[in-house]
Amino acid sequence: MTDGKRSVGKVSSYRFEAEPFHCDFTHRLSMAQLCNHLLNAADFHAMERGFGMASLNGEKETWVLSRLAVEMDEQPRQYEEFFVETWLEGVKRSFIDRNFRIADPAGRAYGYGRSTWALIETDTRTPIDTSSMSCGSLSEWIEAGKECPVERCSRVVVSKEATLLDTVRASYGDVDVNGHVNSIKYMERALDLFPMEWHATHRLKRVEMAYIAESHGGDELAFFCEAPEESERRVRIMRNPQGAGGGVEVCRCGFNFVNI
Amino acid sequence: MTDGKRSVGKVSSYRFEAEPFHCDFTHRLSMAQLCNHLLNAADFHAMERGFGMASLNGEKETWVLSRLAVEMDEQPRQYEEFFVETWLEGVKRSFIDRNFRIADPAGRAYGYGRSTWALIETDTRTPIDTSSMSCGSLSEWIEAGKECPVERCSRVVVSKEATLLDTVRASYGDVDVNGHVNSIKYMERALDLFPMEWHATHRLKRVEMAYIAESHGGDELAFFCEAPEESERRVRIMRNPQGAGGGVEVCRCGFNFVNI
Repeated sequence: MTDGKRSVGKVSSYRFEAEPFHCDFTHRLSMAQLCNHLLNAADFHAMERGFGMASLNGEKETWVLSRLAVEMDEQPRQYEEFFVETWLEGVKRSFIDRNFRIADPAGRAYGYGRSTWALIETDTRTPIDTSSMSCGSLSEWIEAGKECPVERCSRVVVSKEATLLDTVRASYGDVDVNGHVNSIKYMERALDLFPMEWHATHRLKRVEMAYIAESHGGDELAFFCEAPEESERRVRIMRNPQGAGGGVEVCRCGFNFVNI
Repeated sequence: MTDGKRSVGKVSSYRFEAEPFHCDFTHRLSMAQLCNHLLNAADFHAMERGFGMASLNGEKETWVLSRLAVEMDEQPRQYEEFFVETWLEGVKRSFIDRNFRIADPAGRAYGYGRSTWALIETDTRTPIDTSSMSCGSLSEWIEAGKECPVERCSRVVVSKEATLLDTVRASYGDVDVNGHVNSIKYMERALDLFPMEWHATHRLKRVEMAYIAESHGGDELAFFCEAPEESERRVRIMRNPQGAGGGVEVCRCGFNFVNI
């Protein structure tokens, strides 16, 4: 899965393949599977520099994804190899900004991504200042000058008038190694709200994910959707919506499609 | 993802890695993600010998999975590399029997699998005799003597008394490059029927999948479950269960768990 494990610069590149069963019916890699690979690349990059999940878990610390924006001109085709470059753009208290560039083997960009991650204490789930990390300051890894020509994730505003489209129970397959519902599963579940006919006529160009709170296996998740523009969808995911105040806001998603 | 692309013997071995987000909350590769890798290995093996999905699709033929049985003593841990060996055990009219051996880097077996695939015509979805394949007879690839010490998939009998546990609509993310609901998605959806407490106290040792008919995006899928033994679950998945005769049987799953 990985290339460049011996690279210790600020930027690393990892090789992936658009596996057939990670592609959708258009024979292109799905956005959700691409984003899973971005998370893998982030973890590999951090691990090689001493601040990956595996080294942090021993210290009862972990990274949680706070914001993610990915914009793709096209997705890799079934069986094609592609490369994910990743680097830190900035570090501020508990947060790091990490960027991505997704390219074909010739180096041509398919698209770019921007993400923000928070360092938290695994027991209390509260943020920790990254300057206290035992691996030393992260600022030595910052590569601020590298181009990343996509906008950062917005606040992904979803109005109170959004319509309840579905309610699902978070289950075994939604939960990841961190013991909570996996960040990308929210995206998958939200994209499943739209009918096949929509996906057959629209390509997902840009996705924004704003993560607010965690949810766990067994939680009920309610999906509220609105369409600010013809080709745009926003989704608010509420945990245990029968609870006080309509439950807890877990995540907001923004999807910009283009006609195909 | 792949090793041994230049191997043209009867058996090939492919390297994979237990990616963190393919592991469950026990930090081991999930059975569904393992089975997805078995399907990848099957496709790579077939592709290297001229009868993979990519070459067949040009001829309006494809492979569909008919039976799958996988039995694991343990699953690879998060970040571990593992190897999937695969080979054909037999060929009979439209069907091939393909076996798997899953091993750690030292060659020690984690477990084994057995599968049966049907060659079908993509437009009519009817079986085609493999002897008519333009790549030539598949029998030259048969490796009948290699050990595969797990039982083949049973008929996975599910009685009429099985209980309806859930009904879901097959959606965008369930559909794969073949345009139908992906074989492994049925397994994921069925494993999601069992509460987190069950998965926290039971490890899935053996899975059997019997695929009967196809389903597509938008189809309603009903999951009927029974427990022939304390640690065994069987699930029947029916398509459009409001239809005549209670709908169409799509798939039957058998799960054998062990206490942990």
